Amino acid sequence: MATRVHVGMETEMNENGETEMVKSNWKSRYREFSGKMKRFPNWLWRTIWKVGREDPRRMIHAVKVGLSLTLVSLLYLMEPLFKGIGTNAIWAVMTVVVVLEFTAGATLCKGLNRGLGTLLAGSLAFLIEFIATKSGKVFRAVFIGSAVFLIGAAATYMRFFPYIKKNYDYGVVIFLLTFNLITVSSYRVENVLKIAHDRFYTIAIGCALCLFMSLMVFPIWSGEDLHNSTVGKLEGLAKSIEACVNEYFNGSEMKENRENLSEDPIYKGYKAVLDSKSTDETLALYASWEPRHSRHCYRFPWQQYVKVGVVLRQFGYTVVALHGCLQTEIQAPRSVRALFKDPCIRLAREVTIALMELANSIRNRRHCSPGILSDHLHEALQDLNTAIKSQPRLFLGSNNNQATNMLALAAAHAARQNKQEKDGSHGVSLSSVKTDSSALMEWKTKREAKENERKVLRPQLSKIAITSLEFSEALPFASFASLLVEIVARLDNVIEEVEELGRIACYKEYDPEDDEIVVKCERPPVDVTNQLPAHASD
Amino acid sequence: MATRVHVGMETEMNENGETEMVKSNWKSRYREFSGKMKRFPNWLWRTIWKVGREDPRRMIHAVKVGLSLTLVSLLYLMEPLFKGIGTNAIWAVMTVVVVLEFTAGATLCKGLNRGLGTLLAGSLAFLIEFIATKSGKVFRAVFIGSAVFLIGAAATYMRFFPYIKKNYDYGVVIFLLTFNLITVSSYRVENVLKIAHDRFYTIAIGCALCLFMSLMVFPIWSGEDLHNSTVGKLEGLAKSIEACVNEYFNGSEMKENRENLSEDPIYKGYKAVLDSKSTDETLALYASWEPRHSRHCYRFPWQQYVKVGVVLRQFGYTVVALHGCLQTEIQAPRSVRALFKDPCIRLAREVTIALMELANSIRNRRHCSPGILSDHLHEALQDLNTAIKSQPRLFLGSNNNQATNMLALAAAHAARQNKQEKDGSHGVSLSSVKTDSSALMEWKTKREAKENERKVLRPQLSKIAITSLEFSEALPFASFASLLVEIVARLDNVIEEVEELGRIACYKEYDPEDDEIVVKCERPPVDVTNQLPAHASD
Repeated sequence: MATRVHVGMETEMNENGETEMVKSNWKSRYREFSGKMKRFPNWLWRTIWKVGREDPRRMIHAVKVGLSLTLVSLLYLMEPLFKGIGTNAIWAVMTVVVVLEFTAGATLCKGLNRGLGTLLAGSLAFLIEFIATKSGKVFRAVFIGSAVFLIGAAATYMRFFPYIKKNYDYGVVIFLLTFNLITVSSYRVENVLKIAHDRFYTIAIGCALCLFMSLMVFPIWSGEDLHNSTVGKLEGLAKSIEACVNEYFNGSEMKENRENLSEDPIYKGYKAVLDSKSTDETLALYASWEPRHSRHCYRFPWQQYVKVGVVLRQFGYTVVALHGCLQTEIQAPRSVRALFKDPCIRLAREVTIALMELANSIRNRRHCSPGILSDHLHEALQDLNTAIKSQPRLFLGSNNNQATNMLALAAAHAARQNKQEKDGSHGVSLSSVKTDSSALMEWKTKREAKENERKVLRPQLSKIAITSLEFSEALPFASFASLLVEIVARLDNVIEEVEELGRIACYKEYDPEDDEIVVKCERPPVDVTNQLPAHASD
Repeated sequence: MATRVHVGMETEMNENGETEMVKSNWKSRYREFSGKMKRFPNWLWRTIWKVGREDPRRMIHAVKVGLSLTLVSLLYLMEPLFKGIGTNAIWAVMTVVVVLEFTAGATLCKGLNRGLGTLLAGSLAFLIEFIATKSGKVFRAVFIGSAVFLIGAAATYMRFFPYIKKNYDYGVVIFLLTFNLITVSSYRVENVLKIAHDRFYTIAIGCALCLFMSLMVFPIWSGEDLHNSTVGKLEGLAKSIEACVNEYFNGSEMKENRENLSEDPIYKGYKAVLDSKSTDETLALYASWEPRHSRHCYRFPWQQYVKVGVVLRQFGYTVVALHGCLQTEIQAPRSVRALFKDPCIRLAREVTIALMELANSIRNRRHCSPGILSDHLHEALQDLNTAIKSQPRLFLGSNNNQATNMLALAAAHAARQNKQEKDGSHGVSLSSVKTDSSALMEWKTKREAKENERKVLRPQLSKIAITSLEFSEALPFASFASLLVEIVARLDNVIEEVEELGRIACYKEYDPEDDEIVVKCERPPVDVTNQLPAHASD
């Protein structure tokens, strides 16, 4: 406790000091602020442009909302319509504001929740009203008060039920809203039936308009988004693995911008997969409300997309670990990597091809090619196995003056490899082999500079780092190779779930003539949400 | 296209077939339904009990909402209050329903958004009204219609801006709601100033009541939740790593319930970490609205908790990969594992201790112990290194009749180890060593059974699996060891971010006398959200 008060006093003193600084900085801050204000229109324009370019459907949605609001306002503005409905038309306007969501599924979900909630609340309010109406003024007030308390507490508690929270959260809120509105109003207003009737009636008009707008005018389907994002995730993973293996064996120049993680193509590829859980589940929930895909299938299996997402995340974690092999401080030397370059790159390419085939099969809603796990993958695995077995000396520790060993080994291998190679693009340059000790020195210097910068004394850390660096040099590579094999094993799960999806979603059969396997590894469209779905212009 | 129509016809035929089946199953379905209805009260009661036991604050929140609704209803029910405010008191009731959220931060965020939105919309509506009022009836209607369209479209589009979406999404909805309400009403109602005034006034009353309830009566803080969940995540990871390493070296009997992933203690430990992104960000956003922690710090660094969450997720992915070593089909034989059991378990224990110390430091809001990266961790790493270096033959492939080799090696090691051991609890039983070929046979049988079950013909898969199994047996273990070392390296990042958190959140200094490091590895409370925060009874 004493420490806490002390800290508090210190902070207060700091704040006093800060106040003076703030005063002296007042003018510069004002200048900064006015500069910001001048840049504001520019910034605004760029943001508007960027948001629209990322997904043009956003503009369409904005126009749809504006149009719906204007249409529903006509109920109030036009004389004949207003005479029919009256001032309660304003409920319809409010419904449109609240219910019209980006996708058709979300709008349906909210609209039906709102309708159902209103209906239920109306019925219950009548029951309460029926009981309360036969009693005196004071008893009636007490009765209404207790009913409001009980129903309020019960409904709020119900919102914590996982099933209700997932499907009917908004419905319960609207139920509570309407119930209170009617019950409390009934104390003062005689004809409470009319309130309930009007509210339901106008909300129904609003919901109908919203449903019309979201289902008929340039509809945006959650299901389509889920479908495209699944394709995009598969392609992103394929791109990640390819980039990861390429960088591991070729890229040293890419390492400089390692700090800027969001620019890293490897990270970009798997990023969307890792944090997809809540998005997937929301999209699947909304998609399950959408009527669109019920024609061909009894009930379209959106939950299977969620399952594919789960397997893809599991797959993605292994890709993250593979990426970790590139980022870790304990690196396998370039010479060791060069020994296994070809089989690893080949294996990664086969995995990439399989992933792209899965992506294409989902995109075209057809079954996977039966040869998705081709003999090439099998051969690539065999090659890697042979390559690893042919280097039994790699696991020797550094106590056998391994740096020299490694150089000799690498030289021998490079000579052998140069003969075998067709294109000769990845010969091993002996001068580029970084020995154990020089890497250690470099790392230590970097580390120390960083520590001085932070002014944190932690001598143990560097100790650990040094120990780690003295590990057998084959260990990090073994990890890399093992993760690659692990990825092949997990690919199996992914294929299983995608095939299951094809089966229960009644995808068309694979026809090799109809649909050639086009592997677009070069530039897969990762951000599929940018694209307008094909049916948007129907 | 032809294919699609064909599939459609097929499906229709299937549907016809299904309809008949549905009819014949009608009675049994009815019986099922009535059975469900009978079980419903029982299910309801269990759900109520479970939801309340998981987090007792939910009950408090439900009672708070009921109480607030009753209080705000008094505005309408009590004569003197009603005379002052009038029928618009119903807006206050609606505000309470919509604004009062589970945590104080969420309520503040929503309340202020609602207030701000209403105020802005009111001002803008007046401007429109001011222009429209001087013109004819028809022009006015057109003008109002266009204003509704433009403002509606612009506001909806603005909701897609990431900054607005994150902080002011609800405010924009309320802005749109109020703007339409006032603008459209102004066409019919003369005194629109009164509507705007009343609406703002009653909403302010509602918001004030909500803020009082959420800040003064048993407040529930998002910041506290974020703090506890961070502690829980650290403890969960510690538990996961310990369980993972224990199972890798000891557990074969645990493997049977591998199918039931959600029961797995390893999975339970890191599950909360993996999908924490959106929860963390929401909690941090709400927490940043909460005034509670501003006393000691100029501005409490909730964003730093989010950063700790990011590092923990990165750390978690490595733990997932480590767990993957247990689940993969390519297993290092028991004999190889036994060779490295002690150093690995020791290293894992040291990592666990460091994680628990981090968790304790955050829980008690104090800096980490300076000895968090103790020499023990260093020694454990060194031990593992020595152990790996002492087994140069492990990387030999299976072509050198390795199964026999491994048996001999394991026997020699077991004999050596038994001498060194103090407790003798992990001696290697020779009969339990599973040779390469028997493991392969077993796996193949399992695989085939699974494939027959699924009725899927995929001969390539088993081919790959066999190839994988022929890999050098040390490879999977090398991966495991390398991931353990990687975990130590990533621990460094976690410590860095937690120390940064301690620094900018003005945690108290570490005092070894005041606070002994209690390592509660046995039963860490993973689900911290269950616990009532300490200040709830203030």
